[in-house]
Amino acid sequence: MATVVTGIQRASEQVRDGFSNIGVATAHEAAGRTGLLASYIRPIYRPAHIAGTAVTCKVAPGDNWMIHVAAEQCQEGDILVVTPTSPCEDGYFGDLLATSLQSRGVRGLIIDAGVRDVADLTQMKFPVWSKAVYAQGTVKETIADVNMPVVCAGALINPGDLIIADDDGVVCIDRNDAESVLEKAIAREDNEASKRTRFLAGELGLDVYNMRQRLKDKGLKYIDQKDLA
Amino acid sequence: MATVVTGIQRASEQVRDGFSNIGVATAHEAAGRTGLLASYIRPIYRPAHIAGTAVTCKVAPGDNWMIHVAAEQCQEGDILVVTPTSPCEDGYFGDLLATSLQSRGVRGLIIDAGVRDVADLTQMKFPVWSKAVYAQGTVKETIADVNMPVVCAGALINPGDLIIADDDGVVCIDRNDAESVLEKAIAREDNEASKRTRFLAGELGLDVYNMRQRLKDKGLKYIDQKDLA
Amino acid sequence: MATVVTGIQRASEQVRDGFSNIGVATAHEAAGRTGLLASYIRPIYRPAHIAGTAVTCKVAPGDNWMIHVAAEQCQEGDILVVTPTSPCEDGYFGDLLATSLQSRGVRGLIIDAGVRDVADLTQMKFPVWSKAVYAQGTVKETIADVNMPVVCAGALINPGDLIIADDDGVVCIDRNDAESVLEKAIAREDNEASKRTRFLAGELGLDVYNMRQRLKDKGLKYIDQKDLA
Amino acid sequence: MATVVTGIQRASEQVRDGFSNIGVATAHEAAGRTGLLASYIRPIYRPAHIAGTAVTCKVAPGDNWMIHVAAEQCQEGDILVVTPTSPCEDGYFGDLLATSLQSRGVRGLIIDAGVRDVADLTQMKFPVWSKAVYAQGTVKETIADVNMPVVCAGALINPGDLIIADDDGVVCIDRNDAESVLEKAIAREDNEASKRTRFLAGELGLDVYNMRQRLKDKGLKYIDQKDLA
Amino acid sequence: MATVVTGIQRASEQVRDGFSNIGVATAHEAAGRTGLLASYIRPIYRPAHIAGTAVTCKVAPGDNWMIHVAAEQCQEGDILVVTPTSPCEDGYFGDLLATSLQSRGVRGLIIDAGVRDVADLTQMKFPVWSKAVYAQGTVKETIADVNMPVVCAGALINPGDLIIADDDGVVCIDRNDAESVLEKAIAREDNEASKRTRFLAGELGLDVYNMRQRLKDKGLKYIDQKDLA
Amino acid sequence: MATVVTGIQRASEQVRDGFSNIGVATAHEAAGRTGLLASYIRPIYRPAHIAGTAVTCKVAPGDNWMIHVAAEQCQEGDILVVTPTSPCEDGYFGDLLATSLQSRGVRGLIIDAGVRDVADLTQMKFPVWSKAVYAQGTVKETIADVNMPVVCAGALINPGDLIIADDDGVVCIDRNDAESVLEKAIAREDNEASKRTRFLAGELGLDVYNMRQRLKDKGLKYIDQKDLA
Repeated sequence: MATVVTGIQRASEQVRDGFSNIGVATAHEAAGRTGLLASYIRPIYRPAHIAGTAVTCKVAPGDNWMIHVAAEQCQEGDILVVTPTSPCEDGYFGDLLATSLQSRGVRGLIIDAGVRDVADLTQMKFPVWSKAVYAQGTVKETIADVNMPVVCAGALINPGDLIIADDDGVVCIDRNDAESVLEKAIAREDNEASKRTRFLAGELGLDVYNMRQRLKDKGLKYIDQKDLA
Repeated sequence: MATVVTGIQRASEQVRDGFSNIGVATAHEAAGRTGLLASYIRPIYRPAHIAGTAVTCKVAPGDNWMIHVAAEQCQEGDILVVTPTSPCEDGYFGDLLATSLQSRGVRGLIIDAGVRDVADLTQMKFPVWSKAVYAQGTVKETIADVNMPVVCAGALINPGDLIIADDDGVVCIDRNDAESVLEKAIAREDNEASKRTRFLAGELGLDVYNMRQRLKDKGLKYIDQKDLA
Repeated sequence: MATVVTGIQRASEQVRDGFSNIGVATAHEAAGRTGLLASYIRPIYRPAHIAGTAVTCKVAPGDNWMIHVAAEQCQEGDILVVTPTSPCEDGYFGDLLATSLQSRGVRGLIIDAGVRDVADLTQMKFPVWSKAVYAQGTVKETIADVNMPVVCAGALINPGDLIIADDDGVVCIDRNDAESVLEKAIAREDNEASKRTRFLAGELGLDVYNMRQRLKDKGLKYIDQKDLA
Repeated sequence: MATVVTGIQRASEQVRDGFSNIGVATAHEAAGRTGLLASYIRPIYRPAHIAGTAVTCKVAPGDNWMIHVAAEQCQEGDILVVTPTSPCEDGYFGDLLATSLQSRGVRGLIIDAGVRDVADLTQMKFPVWSKAVYAQGTVKETIADVNMPVVCAGALINPGDLIIADDDGVVCIDRNDAESVLEKAIAREDNEASKRTRFLAGELGLDVYNMRQRLKDKGLKYIDQKDLA
Repeated sequence: MATVVTGIQRASEQVRDGFSNIGVATAHEAAGRTGLLASYIRPIYRPAHIAGTAVTCKVAPGDNWMIHVAAEQCQEGDILVVTPTSPCEDGYFGDLLATSLQSRGVRGLIIDAGVRDVADLTQMKFPVWSKAVYAQGTVKETIADVNMPVVCAGALINPGDLIIADDDGVVCIDRNDAESVLEKAIAREDNEASKRTRFLAGELGLDVYNMRQRLKDKGLKYIDQKDLA
Repeated sequence: MATVVTGIQRASEQVRDGFSNIGVATAHEAAGRTGLLASYIRPIYRPAHIAGTAVTCKVAPGDNWMIHVAAEQCQEGDILVVTPTSPCEDGYFGDLLATSLQSRGVRGLIIDAGVRDVADLTQMKFPVWSKAVYAQGTVKETIADVNMPVVCAGALINPGDLIIADDDGVVCIDRNDAESVLEKAIAREDNEASKRTRFLAGELGLDVYNMRQRLKDKGLKYIDQKDLA
């Protein structure tokens, strides 16, 4: 019953590349705080920052066969998203697979498992966000789905969704929401720029965000240390 | 019942800055091996090394409101210490708050929770020691204490205590002991320097520390591999 | 009953240094996928890559006394392998011990526990693979074995075995198999080089490894997204 | 933008109650090995075994407000599924909420967070599968969705899906597949019963499953211990 | 510098025994949600419920010597609280020490480390809340403090403080607040009893706590599933 | 290269059954504190206590094929020890395999991975010590060794070694040392019985073990709380 879905719809190139300068935290906020992968998914080197469209790939524990199948479905601007069917930290992916994907224009790998050859991957500038770095090899015995919906590190990812990954982690934006999320993200960055100017000038968040009255209403008290019991 | 304590007593500037060249391991030894935060608190970039006086801040899980309140209590030479009232890895702190704190002369952040915008924080050279890097946003709904004693990553920290943080982690020195600990730390470093010379010359710890007789008394045996069964 | 075994047999210098250019992943594959340490053992700085012969050392929890005893057993080309008799993350090892080992030609440390002074160790270029970075100090009260077989991070290591460590982790090669493993590792690297050329040229793993027929036999189906229910 | 979806479609009562005697492992196999929640979700007491239809509920970290909202959406035969918007182990649920749900015919709670009052819940026979037992209280400040799709402990759950939970953990069966999965599960149990008879009689899996030839083809060798090197 | 403090002040017997029927969750709420130990501290058998006054004991990693020293400081109605000076899961405590403590009227043990002989302890009805069950033995080489303040599983505990432990975990109540916390806890239980009656009768939390208007003000929307896009 | 070793030497029946009344903690002490498996290996039900001879079995991650092969090598009085070639928590073993093993006289299973059908296993009284309970199914594709030495949960286990498992965990005794370890274990239990009598009578460990002078020599001080600063 393992299936490879071909001809997937992807977020548009324009929207995809529009996210190239948007950080994960900003995109996550703009998307209504949804789609964030768990914090244990970390980049193998820093700094790194990519945006691309998801090709999704399930793999059996300790078995990287389907990554070869998924590679054929990848095109320029994609990010490969790999998730095992049960938790596994084996090194599913190394410099040969990275060479293959990089030659096809793939921008990086998100894997809820392990990766190896990280010194080479760093030198090749092929970024990977993974659960572990582990040299443990894998077999090629069991087939699984490519380009079906997956849950990766706690986030639902559909093929063609937009993936943004940076030093803060990884977020998935629903393909159908990507354009409006991009607009909100840009607006949010503009807003933050003006806030930054005020903070640089020494203003406090208490004033920038008008928090003082609401804190008082909640009952916050100020006491000088000398007056504590 | 949430309280902000103002006008806190701090370790003196002289003592505080005296620790600028003291590492965490040395300070921890000089303090009688007390005050060390748990090993899961790690710097977001390396190398990093700061010493400063603690402003303490409790936050509700997923709620960073009180960090804005704490910012107002911070001054030149402080380090902000944030601890959630129950375990949480959300990204409580990012580049805007860092801008605000940096403009007030705060030297860094210690947080038993998550942080985001770490690429920006790295570029700004605002060091953070945290439990996690995570883009997850927080709300502003629940108030809590500022400058009350906190347990942060397993260590008791009082406002005004001395905090030292480097690539090895974070240690807290009681404000009232800071001066004598500094003296011991400097003496310890001097002692280590002479030891280092002997080790560089090829002497063994067995001889530098006169361990041979005590090992023998404990019953340590030497056997050539050929003579093993 | 604590014993120090002297005069241990080591893998030959030629084989040992032959591994200097072999990565952990390759060595692990060449050794039949055996001998890999758990993925939680990580280098304190990157990149780092060493090969050497194991001197093994047990330590009591929170007690680094035997590292001083083990230092005397170390010689040029060795790697010290330290494992606690029960799990512990204390900082057993710092810059003084590193100075001592480095002056004896030891190439690095593998420790299933904690290490401290990592900023200094990084500057000294003394590489360490550890379970934790932690400033916590240790005592010198309890003796234990040196150069007896140990289980370190899940791998059995005999004194004199070959250790290879790089950014992917650490692998142990049985002293008696080291020569044949080295041959296989070199053959494997040659084979990978030719594969890399094909991947660079855009060939797919599906074709490079002739996977298409076997995938079909396993029942893999391709469906266009338009034709999904 | 927080939304409560009312009038959800549920798996039929007949199918739902058909699963009452089916274990999680069997249901998971019958569903093509999909839908299993992570192994860290454990029952607060054992034995426990329930099947029911999912009412889904998101909660903010440290905030159980929406559980009260979700309670109104629950009916006889439901199982409440609660997932925090970021990881949290607080005690979101205790004996009062359990009393409320039990009075409405709810069969149990699945929560990717903490629970408290477990002695009372055990005595009441209200089963809970949770990530943690923790007395930590929660607030009521932030709203979130009820009966929208959720990812709970790594599994996608839609409202109205079938949930089965027993001592082995928790599995979710898609509402639309539930009937055919039930048929396969019953067939599987029948098949296992005949296998069990053969195993009880001392037959080996090697023969029951005809494995010997395939093992030989894979290259498995048998050697007497006396003949090992 | 290791010190045993004798003649400690304890919470009164009357207050101590007043907590015998109060659960941890209730006591924690009555204490303003402070003093809760981390959720990883779990009872070795269930159900179990004790209240008593703390005797505190620090121990070196892998070294249980000070538990013998602390035993002498224990009296009827006490609970021994043991915390290692760095994280350790060794089995510091077994049936002989339990026999000794039980013969002195000690009500149980709280230990941020491991325990062994749990089958015997269960049969003896000597309850223990621990981080781990582990047979690993300990040595008697290093001294440490008894009846000094400790941080145990994230909570500050002073000698003489009130400890309550049940199936939900462990909470510490400051000795000086114990009487007023007890009053609040009893009031809280009375209040919960009346709530329970209403929940049993089928009333919803939405009405019992008058939540509907506030949810509406926050913007919560209700949509029938048929009307979702 | 996968190999099944037949005709293994086992510890004698007499020694094996002599351990039936010896607990894990006692056996571990008698064996010089060696051979203990990690604390994360826990029994699926309690109380449970077995002693037997090890049949060892490696399995690929997510692949339980070799357990069927190992079953044929098991005989009356054995304990099956299963370890994956890389970390995995899948449910390798359930009630059918347990039925098969139980019909051959196997006393239990030790597995550094997951198990399922635990309600059935509990009812059958087939004890299992595992890393996880998880319903996740496995495949039968990859072969591996049976009755070769394994590292299981951090302990080296050779086929034929003696395994003891109880509520405290699991320990392995080298086959060649088993007889002398049994003698020491029995002596230890006798010694503990006399100690228990003294503790029951209210004597302190300080006196039973003559600790007072040595504590004084180490510098332990006693101070009345009134005399603290």
